[in-house]
Amino acid sequence: MKAEIIAVGTELLLGQIVNTNAQFLSEQLNAQGISVYFHSVVGDNPDRLAAQLAIAHSRSDLVLLTGGLGSTKDDLTKEVVARHVGRSLKLEPQALKRIQRFFEARQMPMTENNKRQALIIDGARVFPNETGLAPGMAVKHEGVHYLLFPGPPGELKPMYFKYARPYLVELSPDQHVVHSKVMRFCGIGESALESRLLDLIDNQTNPTIAPLAKEGEVTLRLTSFAKSKADAEQKMASLIREIQARVGKYQYGWDEETLEEVLVRQLHHNNLTVAAAESCTGGLVCHSITRVNGASQVFPGGIVCYANDVKMGELGVPPEVLGQDGAISERTARILAEEVRKKFKTDLGVSVTGVAGPEQQERKPVGLVFIGVAGEHKTRVYKVNVGGSRHTVQTRAAKLALFYLIRTVEELVGNQSG
Amino acid sequence: MKAEIIAVGTELLLGQIVNTNAQFLSEQLNAQGISVYFHSVVGDNPDRLAAQLAIAHSRSDLVLLTGGLGSTKDDLTKEVVARHVGRSLKLEPQALKRIQRFFEARQMPMTENNKRQALIIDGARVFPNETGLAPGMAVKHEGVHYLLFPGPPGELKPMYFKYARPYLVELSPDQHVVHSKVMRFCGIGESALESRLLDLIDNQTNPTIAPLAKEGEVTLRLTSFAKSKADAEQKMASLIREIQARVGKYQYGWDEETLEEVLVRQLHHNNLTVAAAESCTGGLVCHSITRVNGASQVFPGGIVCYANDVKMGELGVPPEVLGQDGAISERTARILAEEVRKKFKTDLGVSVTGVAGPEQQERKPVGLVFIGVAGEHKTRVYKVNVGGSRHTVQTRAAKLALFYLIRTVEELVGNQSG
Repeated sequence: MKAEIIAVGTELLLGQIVNTNAQFLSEQLNAQGISVYFHSVVGDNPDRLAAQLAIAHSRSDLVLLTGGLGSTKDDLTKEVVARHVGRSLKLEPQALKRIQRFFEARQMPMTENNKRQALIIDGARVFPNETGLAPGMAVKHEGVHYLLFPGPPGELKPMYFKYARPYLVELSPDQHVVHSKVMRFCGIGESALESRLLDLIDNQTNPTIAPLAKEGEVTLRLTSFAKSKADAEQKMASLIREIQARVGKYQYGWDEETLEEVLVRQLHHNNLTVAAAESCTGGLVCHSITRVNGASQVFPGGIVCYANDVKMGELGVPPEVLGQDGAISERTARILAEEVRKKFKTDLGVSVTGVAGPEQQERKPVGLVFIGVAGEHKTRVYKVNVGGSRHTVQTRAAKLALFYLIRTVEELVGNQSG
Repeated sequence: MKAEIIAVGTELLLGQIVNTNAQFLSEQLNAQGISVYFHSVVGDNPDRLAAQLAIAHSRSDLVLLTGGLGSTKDDLTKEVVARHVGRSLKLEPQALKRIQRFFEARQMPMTENNKRQALIIDGARVFPNETGLAPGMAVKHEGVHYLLFPGPPGELKPMYFKYARPYLVELSPDQHVVHSKVMRFCGIGESALESRLLDLIDNQTNPTIAPLAKEGEVTLRLTSFAKSKADAEQKMASLIREIQARVGKYQYGWDEETLEEVLVRQLHHNNLTVAAAESCTGGLVCHSITRVNGASQVFPGGIVCYANDVKMGELGVPPEVLGQDGAISERTARILAEEVRKKFKTDLGVSVTGVAGPEQQERKPVGLVFIGVAGEHKTRVYKVNVGGSRHTVQTRAAKLALFYLIRTVEELVGNQSG
């Protein structure tokens, strides 16, 4: 099945926003074994969209459209697609009810324009919008499937997972089973990871292995194709065992989970708590933890000790340590982690102190970072170099701090998590 | 002049990366007064790229291609465009020299594949690559201009500014001067801002006004076209005066500057310091400030007081305040801001306490946030509702905290900044 994605929206052609929807849908379609051959973007212009639909019709079996389902007169995707497939628009009662309830709840008047959002193409399968107002839909015309989605990613993604993916699975009942898994790594660079897996990557056919580096993390996407689910999973399992035997100690999680989600879950699961003392990351470790719902169970708080006065006054770093070793040192990191643990009466304390740049500090190079992790009986300090821009140094240092915390919890509880 | 942008690369169709180059080029072309009508993405496949070039040739005057200029056999943009315009490829001596020097400097052998990067389309204008190896180029065929750029943004952007932009200016010597400015607002929603400027937006022709909402911020991009620079600036100036008369109190900056950059600059400029006590934002205000180079001059640190124990123990919030009013209250926000200011001996103290969600807290709704700003003589507490996802609540609350700080500094120093 050949797929293509058309995004509708002048704001994309003006460069005001990036077409992240095309990335999301491509990733999902490929994971389902559907190949994407083209992306395109057209503005809010009926003639150019119609011309683009004609091109897509001639070369694809599956056309996904994003955007242009809103309530303003610029939103014309439904109208143009309806004309393209030779059908009319009609009101969808469920969608209309949702919109009416939305305005009632806010005690705002509903205009005729808002009603337009409840129009669907006659005969289309409706994809309800559970996080917004405009429903999506699917319609088939001369063997080509057209799927329409709202533009906001917060509406498109849940709609895709709940309604569009099942629709696409129905389309190809005899399709091979596609099984995909993402392994997430931290504390190892992309090239170091790849070099340890080079023979596996070079000889990949099924499952395939796709490495991808993000700031401070590396992921491996494994995809296996097989005739049955059991078969696909078995193929995958032996590859995963082989990868874990080589680089398993750097893996922190699976699929879409983040470092902070894994950490909060592990802490929660083991009834442990953590506090943080942050210098160069300025609060990013604390904030990352509080991004996770339920963080309050495991995280009472932390100290941002950007200035040396705060390191001394709030966290008891002796002036002579700052004088002799400096703020960016093994000893300072150790004391910060131990003291913040005591101060907040937590099971673990973590600290980050380093040179975020752009200038060096204490004659130490940009990117040099010390990360301390203190437990009841032991404190470990990691010295790392995460050189790059200020943003890169802060992001990578915070991710490593989360990663070392995860490792520490795993060690403490005898690696039961995973 | 009608332009379109074609990105070449299977990694885009697999969803491994986002097409940020299309955004960058669109923004630049629009700023130069060139309208972009289509974006497309094709994989590393000669037939599909050739077909896409034929479509582009039929509808555009200017076709910008990104990617596919590298040294591997997947990189085929030059070959396919050469065939499309009926020309051959030839070695470009300057580019070859650069590549040779690159490998010599690294004492690495240069392969035949690397040499391919120095090939250009016969008769093309060369765009040297000063941050990489593969040169870009421009070639004209049947009235249509084809511009080829390397895919990595770090190579494309400098090449665009130094070589492609002058080329495009030459193409339209009688083109009007284009002058563009972005006004940045916080503390007001997009629809509220638009409704106060409705007549200006409805009647826009020159300058044009394009509003855009980002998480917690709204921007207005003003673009004026004129025969001379003085003319363009004058047209712009009167529009800016009109906008500022209506919504000036919500403007915090210009063009690409961030809230934290404006705040750090203003604090620095006025010899002021700030400390932060954060509950629901968990360190995001602190971290935002430390993202700015030079933050250490104005920001000693802060306290992340996620748990009530920390609010009491570290920041002296009396238990009876937490018992009567709750942690999410005007009184708590006030005390946190005042106490953190005292504790860190700063000129200003800021606090954030609210319901990040997804569940309500203290029977208060998700999105309710109190932001305190304490100075030497006065503390002000702002009660806001920034409902949405956990991420949205945290982001908007942190941005508002930065915005209220900026306003406070402006008031303190008699609005000299701006």
